[in-house]
Amino acid sequence: MDGWSYSNPVKTCFGEGRFDDLPRLIDGRPYCVVTYGEDYFLSLAERLAERSHPAVAVISDVAPNPDFALLGKQAASCAGLDPYPEVFVAIGGGSVIDTAKVLAAAGGDFERVKTFLETKSGADDLADTGIIAVPTTSGTGSEVTSWGTVWDAAAQKKYSLNLRSLYPEHAVVDPLLMLGKSRELTVSTGLDALSHALESLWNVSANPVSTAFAVAAAREILEVLPQLTEDLSSRPLRGRMAQAAIMSGYAFSNTKTAIAHSISYPITLRHNVAHGIACSFSLPIVLRSVARDEGQGADALRRIFGQDLEAASARLMEFLNILGVSMDPADHGVDRNEWETLVDAAFDGERGLNFTGSKEKLQQAAKSFGIV
Amino acid sequence: MDGWSYSNPVKTCFGEGRFDDLPRLIDGRPYCVVTYGEDYFLSLAERLAERSHPAVAVISDVAPNPDFALLGKQAASCAGLDPYPEVFVAIGGGSVIDTAKVLAAAGGDFERVKTFLETKSGADDLADTGIIAVPTTSGTGSEVTSWGTVWDAAAQKKYSLNLRSLYPEHAVVDPLLMLGKSRELTVSTGLDALSHALESLWNVSANPVSTAFAVAAAREILEVLPQLTEDLSSRPLRGRMAQAAIMSGYAFSNTKTAIAHSISYPITLRHNVAHGIACSFSLPIVLRSVARDEGQGADALRRIFGQDLEAASARLMEFLNILGVSMDPADHGVDRNEWETLVDAAFDGERGLNFTGSKEKLQQAAKSFGIV
Repeated sequence: MDGWSYSNPVKTCFGEGRFDDLPRLIDGRPYCVVTYGEDYFLSLAERLAERSHPAVAVISDVAPNPDFALLGKQAASCAGLDPYPEVFVAIGGGSVIDTAKVLAAAGGDFERVKTFLETKSGADDLADTGIIAVPTTSGTGSEVTSWGTVWDAAAQKKYSLNLRSLYPEHAVVDPLLMLGKSRELTVSTGLDALSHALESLWNVSANPVSTAFAVAAAREILEVLPQLTEDLSSRPLRGRMAQAAIMSGYAFSNTKTAIAHSISYPITLRHNVAHGIACSFSLPIVLRSVARDEGQGADALRRIFGQDLEAASARLMEFLNILGVSMDPADHGVDRNEWETLVDAAFDGERGLNFTGSKEKLQQAAKSFGIV
Repeated sequence: MDGWSYSNPVKTCFGEGRFDDLPRLIDGRPYCVVTYGEDYFLSLAERLAERSHPAVAVISDVAPNPDFALLGKQAASCAGLDPYPEVFVAIGGGSVIDTAKVLAAAGGDFERVKTFLETKSGADDLADTGIIAVPTTSGTGSEVTSWGTVWDAAAQKKYSLNLRSLYPEHAVVDPLLMLGKSRELTVSTGLDALSHALESLWNVSANPVSTAFAVAAAREILEVLPQLTEDLSSRPLRGRMAQAAIMSGYAFSNTKTAIAHSISYPITLRHNVAHGIACSFSLPIVLRSVARDEGQGADALRRIFGQDLEAASARLMEFLNILGVSMDPADHGVDRNEWETLVDAAFDGERGLNFTGSKEKLQQAAKSFGIV
């Protein structure tokens, strides 16, 4: 029996209206808000300032897929703050929370983070400012993980900044903040959460704790997400989806992701496919490729999908269809040649190495769907 | 939809041989070992001293159900230590881990803990020395909780010392340490773990995170424990039971226990019934009493026991039978009159207030089994 470790120090609170717990959690400390520039998010920052005290800064120019160029400017804008923030309060989706993590580690100087990412050295030079994460989508999981995804678009590279100090102090999950989100965003973020759960199962670091979370999360997402896309203003469904996303986050917080994510990064970089779609359209292929494997991962997949995992992969394709997501790489801009190259490279990627399955079976499974 | 919170900062590691991770985790700090007096435990303390550095003290006179009188002496014996320990390393069952927690809070003076328990004041006077918990049974859960059960036998009272600082830094779960345990101890501790899982479900503080743990733990214990009692030296079964006990611990670490535990404390005090038996013989009664309730707790119980929860309670009785545990209070020294009084008082107890069910349904369920 293999050994394993699990820990996750984040204090998570969930519930409608929990946004207003923030003043108590900030507890008088100087704070910097990181959020998007739309009115909705700026009004949340104002609501916080009214009920707490004014932020020392509001960084509101976060763009999807946090990139070296913008992060450098954002970190520089923090450098001169007086008082320097003791906590970064991230209000937004994965890009916002990941940006806050980078800023918390940069301590006003992005070069430190860049050096660490590129050379894996200089960890001692990084700052460890506190983070409070307030997700406004149900999917990222970044509110309960110790890493942030960082992109160097100019060099066509993707990095993961991974430090124990990046675990947020608190994750404040208020489903009322998710109510106004579009169908498109609800689908892509929801599928990101499903991918986190499943990728923690076909994973060399899977353990009973991550598995318990993944099973609970995936069962719930498969049931809730299609209903939610038909009833976007349902508070109970928003709440259930938010809870499932937290559990997906807990699941992969100790395993990281695997092959579906490894395949996704170049697709997002080159073809500008939303992360949640890029990391989930291949899930039926991956599921079929491990359908005949045995062990704890397979047992867990059966508790989600039922006994016949080969049939389950067709059902998962149908689930994606209902949500309007094609599992054909060509529909995401990836032709047959690129797919072959992508998959080859994905198996050598850091996340690809987490995958318990094999390249041969994955390509065989892809062919069995008749799409590559 | 109700709000909830979850957090658990313990760093848990599991695996055969993980005991030898202790020197790395102690990391040169002065430490005090808390354990039992039997040779087996003293030899573990010696093994640790050889691979790390000598302990500043070994407290090895822990008795079942840590009591005011003995705890006072044990705390006093720590007072003069030089250097004073920076970490208490508990190697043993629930009584050992709970004793270590009391000593970590006492800072050499048990009166501080006593005052806090009796008056709920004086928290600032308590120490917060680190704790590393190394359970040698699969059941207590104390390795991942922030409280310890403390008994004042002279006053026939039971207290719970509950402080965030009592979360162990590390839980080191090495199933090889459980291999030599008797059938009796394996059953009572295993049932304690099952009770933790189920009591976290019929609990006002149940939430999706605790529920995911409870479902995974209870399913596994129901499958593994009977097999293990027939094959006590099976390493895979010891491992599976140890993993399930960790998950039960995570489940109730954020909900605490409920009515079955509330009923149990006087039975342990007056009739000297092992805690794991006292808190589990009534589980079929409690299960039947909530069988017609609806909601998340019931959904979770169905994922453990199947759709028909009334039938499930009879199956749970049969499960106890197989393990040699009677669900008749009389077999644990409790006559019909005492049972009535016990149940009345249990509903008013701190843990009784956690229970989602009702006294009437519980007494009705007890009668339906024809035992009271």
